[in-house]
Amino acid sequence: MTSIRIYDLTGRDDRRPSPFCWRIKYALAHKGLPFEAVPVALTDIPTLCGGGHKAVPIIEDGSKSVSDSWAIADYLDEAYPDRPRLFSSRAERELCRFVEISLFLSAGTDLFRIYVKDIYDLVLEKDRDYFRKTREARLGRTLEEAYAGREARLDAARAGFESFRLTLQKGGPFLSGGGGPFLSGERPGYADYIVGGFLLWIGSVATVPLLRADDPLLAWFERVRDLHGGLGRTSPMNPIAA
Amino acid sequence: MTSIRIYDLTGRDDRRPSPFCWRIKYALAHKGLPFEAVPVALTDIPTLCGGGHKAVPIIEDGSKSVSDSWAIADYLDEAYPDRPRLFSSRAERELCRFVEISLFLSAGTDLFRIYVKDIYDLVLEKDRDYFRKTREARLGRTLEEAYAGREARLDAARAGFESFRLTLQKGGPFLSGGGGPFLSGERPGYADYIVGGFLLWIGSVATVPLLRADDPLLAWFERVRDLHGGLGRTSPMNPIAA
Repeated sequence: MTSIRIYDLTGRDDRRPSPFCWRIKYALAHKGLPFEAVPVALTDIPTLCGGGHKAVPIIEDGSKSVSDSWAIADYLDEAYPDRPRLFSSRAERELCRFVEISLFLSAGTDLFRIYVKDIYDLVLEKDRDYFRKTREARLGRTLEEAYAGREARLDAARAGFESFRLTLQKGGPFLSGGGGPFLSGERPGYADYIVGGFLLWIGSVATVPLLRADDPLLAWFERVRDLHGGLGRTSPMNPIAA
Repeated sequence: MTSIRIYDLTGRDDRRPSPFCWRIKYALAHKGLPFEAVPVALTDIPTLCGGGHKAVPIIEDGSKSVSDSWAIADYLDEAYPDRPRLFSSRAERELCRFVEISLFLSAGTDLFRIYVKDIYDLVLEKDRDYFRKTREARLGRTLEEAYAGREARLDAARAGFESFRLTLQKGGPFLSGGGGPFLSGERPGYADYIVGGFLLWIGSVATVPLLRADDPLLAWFERVRDLHGGLGRTSPMNPIAA
């Protein structure tokens, strides 16, 4: 089997910030498919695979290239049906979309503002102007304005992970089942890769730790980092908790 | 096949408020299992099935009785494996738990306060003192205090459903797939029954409609009410939208 190539957004010091690339690296490992992660700059994306792809991840599998993390996940289950599935049913896929949407609504927007300046500081030199211009347009303010006073907003962002904490918790207000060790139950699944990839993004740039040292998410996150031969430890990370 | 009996919380005018009973009635219908919904008073629960059950739903299947909606759902998939499954995998079950937890965190607590007085007004006469005492203890305030000024809090509660709206939406900020017609994709699943049962609870009591008339959730909710021969139209409801 030839190795699948995944174009993986890179920053300074070989940091790999993209949460969407992380989930696909986990998806490839979950399916036992050998892959090569090729570091790319943000501004080089339009030149990859003959052009036409707007964002990473992009995978190249032989002569075929696919972008968009959901399209890639679907492709992998279709092209490699005999490998462990990412989604055992359409319902499971749609519920993973709900996980992504919940995560972005409850924590994503807040965290982007809190960490966007940290991301910028680790962006490759050639990407810096493009990053600042596009992200400031999206935020409607400068990176420095988004970042100002962020310590006061961290607690609200932390609270945005409460539904994941409770899903992993045994007992408590939601008594039936649960207890992890993974969001997907006894074995890790795509929901773990979505949320884990999100925390790997934060960890790859954060100069202020996201989680408190006693956050029950931390044990789960360390488990996710250990998966697939320690995939979540293969690029530089700052402390995620303190 | 003998009919399964489900003890179903009832209020005045044969209203059926319990969201947990609703999801199990849908689960039974989903599996094609004939059932009889037996109306019960809140204060009669301890006398049912020889005692020992703290809450409804309780099902009786031959000589076996099971309570707790998650335990019942698991029982139904185990006892009737050849019928359509509620959960195609352990991951799908855990993700449905995440749906429940997200729903309760983002909207449940707010809505309980907003509608608790409406619930009380439709509680059976024999349950009224018990309901007021236990619910006021849980709320840390009187039912009237919880209810005061509720119109001002409705918009925040409505916003708590945003992740479900976006999951059902085709296109928009989350582009890949989706578009419903159900939360579980092309066919309804347990996640639809959890959220649908929750809205049936609100609808069974609400004297102020929860949703705006242009809420995209509404079309989905009407679809869920139509399922399984119009199961969601089998007890009196107030308008859910205006």
